[in-house]
Amino acid sequence: MEATEVWTLASSALVLIMTPGLALFYGGLVRVRSVVNMMLFSVSAMGVVGVLWILFGYSMSVFGDGDGWFAGNPLRDFGLVNTDPGEFIGVGFGAVFAMITTALISGAIADRVGLGSWVLFAGVWAKLVYFPVAAWVWGGGWIAQLGTWLGTPDVIDLAGGTAIHINAGAAALALALVVGKRRDFAPGAHRPHSIPLVTIGAALLWFGWIGFNAGLATDAATAGLILVNTLGAPAAAILGWLATDALRGRKPGVIGAASGAVAGLVAITPAAANLAPGFALLLGVLAGAACAFAIEWKFRLGFDDSLDVVGLHLVAGVLGTVYLGFFAFDDGLFTGGDAGLLLVQVISVLGVVVYSFAASLLIALGVKLTTGLRVPAEVEERGIDAAVHGEEAYAFDQDQRA
Amino acid sequence: MEATEVWTLASSALVLIMTPGLALFYGGLVRVRSVVNMMLFSVSAMGVVGVLWILFGYSMSVFGDGDGWFAGNPLRDFGLVNTDPGEFIGVGFGAVFAMITTALISGAIADRVGLGSWVLFAGVWAKLVYFPVAAWVWGGGWIAQLGTWLGTPDVIDLAGGTAIHINAGAAALALALVVGKRRDFAPGAHRPHSIPLVTIGAALLWFGWIGFNAGLATDAATAGLILVNTLGAPAAAILGWLATDALRGRKPGVIGAASGAVAGLVAITPAAANLAPGFALLLGVLAGAACAFAIEWKFRLGFDDSLDVVGLHLVAGVLGTVYLGFFAFDDGLFTGGDAGLLLVQVISVLGVVVYSFAASLLIALGVKLTTGLRVPAEVEERGIDAAVHGEEAYAFDQDQRA
Amino acid sequence: MEATEVWTLASSALVLIMTPGLALFYGGLVRVRSVVNMMLFSVSAMGVVGVLWILFGYSMSVFGDGDGWFAGNPLRDFGLVNTDPGEFIGVGFGAVFAMITTALISGAIADRVGLGSWVLFAGVWAKLVYFPVAAWVWGGGWIAQLGTWLGTPDVIDLAGGTAIHINAGAAALALALVVGKRRDFAPGAHRPHSIPLVTIGAALLWFGWIGFNAGLATDAATAGLILVNTLGAPAAAILGWLATDALRGRKPGVIGAASGAVAGLVAITPAAANLAPGFALLLGVLAGAACAFAIEWKFRLGFDDSLDVVGLHLVAGVLGTVYLGFFAFDDGLFTGGDAGLLLVQVISVLGVVVYSFAASLLIALGVKLTTGLRVPAEVEERGIDAAVHGEEAYAFDQDQRA
Repeated sequence: MEATEVWTLASSALVLIMTPGLALFYGGLVRVRSVVNMMLFSVSAMGVVGVLWILFGYSMSVFGDGDGWFAGNPLRDFGLVNTDPGEFIGVGFGAVFAMITTALISGAIADRVGLGSWVLFAGVWAKLVYFPVAAWVWGGGWIAQLGTWLGTPDVIDLAGGTAIHINAGAAALALALVVGKRRDFAPGAHRPHSIPLVTIGAALLWFGWIGFNAGLATDAATAGLILVNTLGAPAAAILGWLATDALRGRKPGVIGAASGAVAGLVAITPAAANLAPGFALLLGVLAGAACAFAIEWKFRLGFDDSLDVVGLHLVAGVLGTVYLGFFAFDDGLFTGGDAGLLLVQVISVLGVVVYSFAASLLIALGVKLTTGLRVPAEVEERGIDAAVHGEEAYAFDQDQRA
Repeated sequence: MEATEVWTLASSALVLIMTPGLALFYGGLVRVRSVVNMMLFSVSAMGVVGVLWILFGYSMSVFGDGDGWFAGNPLRDFGLVNTDPGEFIGVGFGAVFAMITTALISGAIADRVGLGSWVLFAGVWAKLVYFPVAAWVWGGGWIAQLGTWLGTPDVIDLAGGTAIHINAGAAALALALVVGKRRDFAPGAHRPHSIPLVTIGAALLWFGWIGFNAGLATDAATAGLILVNTLGAPAAAILGWLATDALRGRKPGVIGAASGAVAGLVAITPAAANLAPGFALLLGVLAGAACAFAIEWKFRLGFDDSLDVVGLHLVAGVLGTVYLGFFAFDDGLFTGGDAGLLLVQVISVLGVVVYSFAASLLIALGVKLTTGLRVPAEVEERGIDAAVHGEEAYAFDQDQRA
Repeated sequence: MEATEVWTLASSALVLIMTPGLALFYGGLVRVRSVVNMMLFSVSAMGVVGVLWILFGYSMSVFGDGDGWFAGNPLRDFGLVNTDPGEFIGVGFGAVFAMITTALISGAIADRVGLGSWVLFAGVWAKLVYFPVAAWVWGGGWIAQLGTWLGTPDVIDLAGGTAIHINAGAAALALALVVGKRRDFAPGAHRPHSIPLVTIGAALLWFGWIGFNAGLATDAATAGLILVNTLGAPAAAILGWLATDALRGRKPGVIGAASGAVAGLVAITPAAANLAPGFALLLGVLAGAACAFAIEWKFRLGFDDSLDVVGLHLVAGVLGTVYLGFFAFDDGLFTGGDAGLLLVQVISVLGVVVYSFAASLLIALGVKLTTGLRVPAEVEERGIDAAVHGEEAYAFDQDQRA
């Protein structure tokens, strides 16, 4: 094995644990009566998307000859029977990306959707949105070719500002709109039930993110820069979020700090190989501050993105992707280039936002026609874990003394 | 360092965290009054088995000249004083396998055994069962030589279908029989006390399993195939378990999904380097479905394998090991071979089941004569954590407002 | 990339997760009303120290031409703009060491210090104590040169017996003295609120410690020895602690076992590359036993080191560093050498203890003058999470049934 193959292999393990990490992060943020439902959405996404990726997702994520512009041919290598074994490490690395991206969306619909509806949405969304968009960005599709077409630098998206975070964020917005608000949706109405669980989840996310961002780096200088930026940006974003809260007169807490770290990690995802460490710190501060404000838009605009997939992933994803247009090595507007890079970064953002939002809206409406999508009001009131899953998160009092 | 040495080193860290992962998985599955006891069994196994491995376990797990058939000579290199330093990475990788295998057994005896009895059992079991069986399978022993003797293909057991899972599962059955049922053993009598803790444990297990299965792979094609199958089989098993529950009219929950993932991981453990990805998916579905049924046998047959070590590890271990006889590359009955591979797979299963069960039964009876093994009835009623450990899992109410 | 670069990269991820692991370990050990405060200290240390490391910490941790004896010039490469990209992996690896070392200190001041005071202390401490001491030990400073000056073997401190554990432990003692005792400080007055959380934290610590100790190893023999010793010493220390408790007539628990593992890991940190595995086991047993006693000194001596940073990190750090003087390969007093190594080991211990204690005392006094350091008595009585952070660790009862 080559050293870089070992690193991609290790990174696959790192990214694998991000989806259960997300299950715990989301699980800690919901009320105690919805924890099982919320965690099961991430775990079931690992099941559905993992299987689909092997069956045809990997084929769809890379364009072959004559595949047109939408996606690779899903039947080109169904079940990976003809894949060159030398590609398998890459297949595995791609599988865990597909899992986490799909799972991210589920944070928008806490407390009010059954497992069947979610699994149906997740499977169709992976097929019609994630696999194609991954092919656009990394599989030779239109976003990868945009720079060549327009005579500008190529779009920069290291590990998924567009394909992962903007994609999932726009889908979360669409899904939240179709599902509708929780009956008691209001600022402060839902206290996270376990801060330690949120901390565990965020810890696993940051940990895995090293592999997420650096997993395909092939030289030590690039890998090292990605490492430093994947440490610096979230560190700065923690401070950015806590400082923003302090300036607004709010008390500092772990949820803010953990959310800040996630915001910084999302923002640096497309950018970690193309920013000097100082600019990564600045991006982190901006991402922490911006997202501290952005997570409150939902109350003004009236969409119930329960766990702030939009306010964190869409907002920080756009911020990091566009920021590259200004500060990327050599080609940024303020770092030696012209507006060309900025232009293609913005186009790629808009392309993914529009497609993901529209397609996700249609898929969500389709699921609504099929399963109803949302659980009955009395289930939501009673608590979805007990009613739908027959399993509650904790049994602290059982047999305390038999 | 060679790249493959780096990978085995990293894999040792991955496998190391599986035993505390198991502590959390098991800890979440028991009632709140037995959490400390259950977790301490895994942690203490890390202590005892880790020390024994360095003292003489590594020597026992590899046959030297004139060591006969049972195990390597424990005094060949007591304390590793003469081991070639170039072997140390392998020594470490073997140590964490020995830890988790022994810890697995403890799930069978929740709520009713004291620490001293467990530690005595664990130490003797490692010496008389794990170290020898590891030598049989991986250290040049009879299972490794079976194919040569019979003129068939060699037994395939990549990472421990026989040596780890069947071995621990058979031992768990023997130990559960000697310890006897909990006083209130009955279907539904024991609700898991924390689903998030179960999720954390399962997450660490799956994460570590990448290193467990792939840690000794030396070429990228093999490592990549193992990676894909170690993602695909548990993904399919999650769906297999949830679908089985749905077909039985049961509600879907995290415990089922997490147990499904574990079942798929156990089944793919012997097989991950020798199955095409499509056959790994099929094995996963079968493992999820089979174990969903198998965990209920204990109520019909009347043995209190508290956390289903038998229903998960023995059943899925046998399934994966025998499945290779049908579907392994080139040599499976349905994939180009004859019944030769199937024969040696079955013989190796039977050999390990019989030896591990019988030896574990004798060891358990020996411990019973020595320490009594089981705590008094009043301790079991009061709760073992408070009575035996003087430590309860949670103190949520202490000084809530001083 | 070279294989060793991949390993340092992977090790950076391993060490990264140690600080949130510490947040969880410490978070589980405090009472339920201080969990957010305790965890936020580690998370905020990741923010502050991560940013400072990139700005000037890395420069300070290595001596350049004409930098004198205290530390590297912080402005030599402000913001890493001129750092050779080939150094970036090392920069990242150093960053996560700086984070965890600073965070370690926070265990001494549970329940009674606000976030602003802590962040101020942490930032100044990193600048005036950690970055210089790291330069002394690993950046070409006086500890690195001591052997040459005295004509003895060089000081051995693989991964931070002095620079990390003794440093943080001495700082913790100074800070605890300045902050003062909690109002209800007494043996047994504070029950850890969650043993599972302690277990999760300890698991992540041990896991990450493989990278912590072995991350810079460049040959397989050394890396393998470090691996074996980083498994063996904590395994033996678990037994050492549990045996010590048994001999004192105390019941065995998870907190003792987990604390034992940490004690063994601290003790082996300076020594893992320079001890035969058998001597690592002996060191582990001694560390477990010694720390089981040492954590009780605080009640006799009357300093409120809340979570035993002194009793674990200072004591085991001194033990492991001095033990090398007796048992290190070739140069130990009992392993072929004379008292030369022992002498320089003791000098390095004393140097770091004296400097860190004195400087930390002054910094703590400075913070006390600036912010008051300690929260008002009524906040401490009410619970710091609710009063200072407006965020409580758990909301189990909210909307249990709406």
